[in-house]
Amino acid sequence: MSLLQKPVAELAPLLKTKQVSPLELVRECLERIEKTEPLVNAYISVLDESALTAAREAEQEILQGRYRGLLHGIPYSAKDLYFTKGVRTTGGSAILAEHVPTENAVAVDRLAAAGAILVGKNNLHEFAYGTTNENDHYGPCRNPWDLQRVTGGSSGGSAASVAAGSSTFSMGTDTGGSIRIPASFCGVVGLKPTYGRVSKRGVIPLSWSMDHAGPLTQTVWDAAAALTELAGYDPGDPGSADVPGEDFTAGLNEAALDIKGLVVGICPQYYNGLLQPAVAQAFAQVLAWFEAGGAVIRELTHPTRDAFSVGSIITMAEAYTYHEKNLEQCGEKYGPSIRYRLEKGQYLPASAYINALRLRQQDRQIWESLYREIDLYLSPTVIMPAFPIGEKTVQFGPDAVDPRTNPVLMYLTSLGDFNGLPVISLPCGFSEEGLPIGFQIQGKPFAEMQVLQAAYAYEQTHPAIRERKCGLWK
Amino acid sequence: MSLLQKPVAELAPLLKTKQVSPLELVRECLERIEKTEPLVNAYISVLDESALTAAREAEQEILQGRYRGLLHGIPYSAKDLYFTKGVRTTGGSAILAEHVPTENAVAVDRLAAAGAILVGKNNLHEFAYGTTNENDHYGPCRNPWDLQRVTGGSSGGSAASVAAGSSTFSMGTDTGGSIRIPASFCGVVGLKPTYGRVSKRGVIPLSWSMDHAGPLTQTVWDAAAALTELAGYDPGDPGSADVPGEDFTAGLNEAALDIKGLVVGICPQYYNGLLQPAVAQAFAQVLAWFEAGGAVIRELTHPTRDAFSVGSIITMAEAYTYHEKNLEQCGEKYGPSIRYRLEKGQYLPASAYINALRLRQQDRQIWESLYREIDLYLSPTVIMPAFPIGEKTVQFGPDAVDPRTNPVLMYLTSLGDFNGLPVISLPCGFSEEGLPIGFQIQGKPFAEMQVLQAAYAYEQTHPAIRERKCGLWK
Repeated sequence: MSLLQKPVAELAPLLKTKQVSPLELVRECLERIEKTEPLVNAYISVLDESALTAAREAEQEILQGRYRGLLHGIPYSAKDLYFTKGVRTTGGSAILAEHVPTENAVAVDRLAAAGAILVGKNNLHEFAYGTTNENDHYGPCRNPWDLQRVTGGSSGGSAASVAAGSSTFSMGTDTGGSIRIPASFCGVVGLKPTYGRVSKRGVIPLSWSMDHAGPLTQTVWDAAAALTELAGYDPGDPGSADVPGEDFTAGLNEAALDIKGLVVGICPQYYNGLLQPAVAQAFAQVLAWFEAGGAVIRELTHPTRDAFSVGSIITMAEAYTYHEKNLEQCGEKYGPSIRYRLEKGQYLPASAYINALRLRQQDRQIWESLYREIDLYLSPTVIMPAFPIGEKTVQFGPDAVDPRTNPVLMYLTSLGDFNGLPVISLPCGFSEEGLPIGFQIQGKPFAEMQVLQAAYAYEQTHPAIRERKCGLWK
Repeated sequence: MSLLQKPVAELAPLLKTKQVSPLELVRECLERIEKTEPLVNAYISVLDESALTAAREAEQEILQGRYRGLLHGIPYSAKDLYFTKGVRTTGGSAILAEHVPTENAVAVDRLAAAGAILVGKNNLHEFAYGTTNENDHYGPCRNPWDLQRVTGGSSGGSAASVAAGSSTFSMGTDTGGSIRIPASFCGVVGLKPTYGRVSKRGVIPLSWSMDHAGPLTQTVWDAAAALTELAGYDPGDPGSADVPGEDFTAGLNEAALDIKGLVVGICPQYYNGLLQPAVAQAFAQVLAWFEAGGAVIRELTHPTRDAFSVGSIITMAEAYTYHEKNLEQCGEKYGPSIRYRLEKGQYLPASAYINALRLRQQDRQIWESLYREIDLYLSPTVIMPAFPIGEKTVQFGPDAVDPRTNPVLMYLTSLGDFNGLPVISLPCGFSEEGLPIGFQIQGKPFAEMQVLQAAYAYEQTHPAIRERKCGLWK
């Protein structure tokens, strides 16, 4: 089995005990990129040279007994929205095609300090403002499980690289579902931490009050390992929360498998009649598993049906503000659908934005009171599995809508960006065509540990789902 | 000497040792209100009955040995922007003329718990959106030092009641200077604490991201005593900061009088040519006193000349949002100048508001770095002393401007609301006509103690200024 099929949890002991060298691992990763990229298009830039240099250094360090920890020597990739010093950072756009930052994003620096090795910058939906990852400038990202289908987005390249084995894990961002949607479509784990948990300094913003940085990984344990390095207060990020990090892998043990007595909220009325049958069925099995394990399922009246549209107003206003000058000076360089989407924000009145912020505040209070009665909140991640690239319409209840202009894919994920609560998406089954399906576990503010533990319990008891790999490994 | 000429610092020991009874004190206060109100108009509602009931209860408690602390039995007033349960809260408007809240503002509850006795609700500029306190519905508030002159606003009634002795202290709010401007005009102390330090739950908002609640008092020590009861985290106020309170009077001792080595920033280029001579002269003497005491005066290039206009955009947007429905449904009930000012916010684009928020964030970072080199920042409070009620124009540098439509009075105070830092205004002299002049001391975030200590040192060494009382006491 290729080393790239192994998660961090398996690679780390091999690296630590010198059974695998970082150089060997990174070389294999770069070969895998070379092999899969013509099919998948998960990368905008590949960093052969700097990755090999870093791998040699890691090798020396480990040989000299200076093993840094779980991510030391692990090859990873980052959505091309993360600033990388001396390496172009396009944001998936033509406007920034030649943009070379002079600093790393804080998250990139943290992972470098942990010894992780950046092998490349992932394809994404232009400026993270879309959910299909059909990128007008760098081409669509292709789903490793079916190359004719979308990866979902906006962190599509991140999810695809992890699924295709062209990185061990990847950094994505999530404003309306951009980590979790592609995680669900590509059969990987995507963790959107609590708002403010991971620094976004040096990450090109879409909507800063809704943006979250987080990892896409092969397993829940790997997500915990990445978060352990990423979490922590950054006074230089105005959105950063002054909450101490912890070792999130420490809680993923035998005890975590016991879910008895856990109170799990669900809200079927929010998505009834909207889920494609394969998704409905896979999610029903998830709930059955929770019940069988002794969890209590509590049906909620959905607290904030409008999170979906209200969140869009916030994003529209903040995205327009960030892009205002470029839209005026070189609007024609944007992909047409992105330009259209951004320009809609131009005449949005301040009062609409402020009211949206107030509704968001109220929504957070509602969740706070809900969480006095439940421990976790569950839902499917996306109402459907991945659809063909270029598909003009998908079914959204009674309507056939364009998934490029209608936020249908965000329908179940945007809640978590609106309320800022920690959510993980993990695979829970496959459609008849063999396409992955994911579900989400959302927890209380900064309760990533509890979220990870429940996800770990599910994953550990579903080895057939966890171990199934995409066709690119055949 | 009337008990109402005594600050909390002198009254508290008399109350504690039963030399003065709360009932006697409150009765005297209500008589003083009766006597001064026809002249001053500092109150919209006077609470004779409930105040006397509370005074009797306080008397019983103290007689039974259950003395609560420094504010027990002290009569105070609150700007009619603070919700009072069962007592109408007009916001200085016609729209809310009959509005009777079902809950107290948290600040009112806290003071009640401390045993303070609310004697009335103060006049203010309509909805706190103006700085002269010429109220179209309840009449102008008149300056106790010269009844033909304005009190300044918007907490004009609060300042006037303390100056006139019709309350021992008062609660005001400050969005652009609304505590400090009237404090300066009426010769009292006004403390605008750090943003988030004092709960604003139950206070009618003007611009919630700029609004501050704080006390107006006779002395610096009294401000410390009030803040001690008011400060503290309130999870029900989204703007509240999770910072513990403390006993702010504890630091006002002999040691506080030593200002040697204190580094004091000033920025004359911001106001050169704008100060009226009496203000310039009084402030020069303040600086001379600081220097004589061994403080180091450091001249700064003003960090944020635009705080003034950028802050106005934030307030315009937030105020419009709060008043939107009323403007549509009963716009004619607003005073014409307030209506005009509010309606300007209607078409403000979200991007302008967001950019203003971003500039504010940058401004806070600039202050953060400035405060690595200075301990305190000093300036006059207002560029002039109080002017006659109805005055059409005042001099603002080369321009003659209308103080009702031009924010000339906020020119030096709006900084402190924009950056959210703690500021105190205290008297530093008098004009030739005998009108009070104030200056401001601004400190680091949540460094109210240091601000109070410097103010205390100045006040203690200037008894002639501190002890001078307005003509209403003759």
